[in-house]
Amino acid sequence: MSAAPLLITQGDVCGIGPEIIARLWQQQAPVDAVVVGDAEVLRRALGWAGVALPLAVLSAPDEPAPPRCLPVWEPPGLPADLCELPVGQIHAKAGAAAALCIEAAVRAVSGGQGRALVTAPIHKEALHAAGSPYPGHTEMLQALAGGVPVRMMLANDELRTVLVTIHCSLREAIERVTREAVLDTVRITHTALRRFGLAAPRIAVAGLNPHAGEGGLFGREEIEHIAPAVADAQALGMDVCGPFAPDTVFMRARRGEFDAVVAMTHDHGLIPVKYLGVEQGVNVTLGLPFVRTSPDHGTAFDIAGTGRADPSSLAAALAMARRLSGPS
Amino acid sequence: MSAAPLLITQGDVCGIGPEIIARLWQQQAPVDAVVVGDAEVLRRALGWAGVALPLAVLSAPDEPAPPRCLPVWEPPGLPADLCELPVGQIHAKAGAAAALCIEAAVRAVSGGQGRALVTAPIHKEALHAAGSPYPGHTEMLQALAGGVPVRMMLANDELRTVLVTIHCSLREAIERVTREAVLDTVRITHTALRRFGLAAPRIAVAGLNPHAGEGGLFGREEIEHIAPAVADAQALGMDVCGPFAPDTVFMRARRGEFDAVVAMTHDHGLIPVKYLGVEQGVNVTLGLPFVRTSPDHGTAFDIAGTGRADPSSLAAALAMARRLSGPS
Repeated sequence: MSAAPLLITQGDVCGIGPEIIARLWQQQAPVDAVVVGDAEVLRRALGWAGVALPLAVLSAPDEPAPPRCLPVWEPPGLPADLCELPVGQIHAKAGAAAALCIEAAVRAVSGGQGRALVTAPIHKEALHAAGSPYPGHTEMLQALAGGVPVRMMLANDELRTVLVTIHCSLREAIERVTREAVLDTVRITHTALRRFGLAAPRIAVAGLNPHAGEGGLFGREEIEHIAPAVADAQALGMDVCGPFAPDTVFMRARRGEFDAVVAMTHDHGLIPVKYLGVEQGVNVTLGLPFVRTSPDHGTAFDIAGTGRADPSSLAAALAMARRLSGPS
Repeated sequence: MSAAPLLITQGDVCGIGPEIIARLWQQQAPVDAVVVGDAEVLRRALGWAGVALPLAVLSAPDEPAPPRCLPVWEPPGLPADLCELPVGQIHAKAGAAAALCIEAAVRAVSGGQGRALVTAPIHKEALHAAGSPYPGHTEMLQALAGGVPVRMMLANDELRTVLVTIHCSLREAIERVTREAVLDTVRITHTALRRFGLAAPRIAVAGLNPHAGEGGLFGREEIEHIAPAVADAQALGMDVCGPFAPDTVFMRARRGEFDAVVAMTHDHGLIPVKYLGVEQGVNVTLGLPFVRTSPDHGTAFDIAGTGRADPSSLAAALAMARRLSGPS
């Protein structure tokens, strides 16, 4: 391995993050990845998942790891006794530890000690309880990257959706659907898809209201904000069209008509990506100065500690981070 | 044929309704169905679709039709010269004709001259232009049935969703998500699924906000309205649970965990039903005193008049109406 490693943050220690990491190493033991987390927590997860691999505690994220082990780098300042927290429950200390690992991993990637970031799930209420001002990964990463505009993309083998709004109430999301926010999303999507190898990405923009507003009968956001943003993007030379009725545009993209769909709300965009199964879905943050992916599921508190969690989506996220950050 | 016929309204004459009816007769010439519409429009549609069947104009919806023909009943008061309207465009006269056919068909079914109603697509702006106070079929049928509470169900082979709100802006939909509206929807769903043959239907209720509100961080409708409605329904003995995160509950239902999902908004419920293709989706109005189904697509103005429209969803709607209204 010549390049810096892919860094995987362990996520909320009370959720399934450490277990899916353990099971991922059981399945494929990637030689180009290092976990940013707590050694004791990861050792316990190896046990829950019945994985016989030893742990290697590294002194720096890019220290070469011995073969056939789970390499972990413990960032300075990690709270002690994380294994004493109740599994499957919201805890401020777990939220604080999750945030600290993400911050340390971003610093490492920014400093060249990691080549991309893959994040295991955190719990938003634990983060909130820890006093973090960020409702989720995406907002935290945006702040750590200096406030650049970013967007969440969800992708699987047959569909890519990019979200104009994410972690806020639906009421608030409607207020955030502005001409500028939609245009920024189309722009970020266009740039990212070109970086991912599509020379002339075809982007569809979904409406906000039923039937994309039905000519103004069911809401005016399409007329006042979304259609003008589409026209702006077209004027900049992008292959973009819409706004289309939200209930059929994803089906059309799945059939190959578009390379990505820009959706106005979290659930308009995520329902179709997850409908056929969350296992293969990957979350990619577009607009950051580095590659960041994550699995398309949450902390799954209901099965945490049972060793039953499925590492497929984490594996897909790791594979996508590897592909997007170039050869190792 | 001993029972009254299934009545199919032709829909907006400027859309694909007449053509999908013509193509349905080409494919299967149902002997238990009669079209409520305009003879000249249907004759033109037979021509566009290249169907050689003759038209039989009946003097009443339940007059026995000759074999091997497309039977049509023209309701009194239908505007003349409907074929002169521009195809693929919104026209008040087309909206008025569509409304008149629906009203006449409902009267026929209510009077025993029809046993169920199958409606081809109408255009909501044409209906509006005609001065109709109803934003769509469902609201019109509800008014014609005396204002009983009704709900729209969308169903295909693998998923059934029932909508708390439908044809209004997303902003307005949020206001309409009340404890009473959610409980009514669960109740109507429970009763209908039992009528459809499920002894103890398992109903999931989706949230409104991302992550079903994430404990109040992303909106309080789940706490204030939806969860109390679920508790009310449970207290009434129904097998109902939720509110669940909208982005994963449909995937869970598809895998067999629930018999139906109650969705708060039009697009939360329709995106997953339509994602794998609109051809097999059927719209069923729950709560009416008669069976009413319709195809899961719109007027498709962009391809009207070309003879290319696909009758699969209309065929599925007819088959479901036949099944739900008992043997012919």
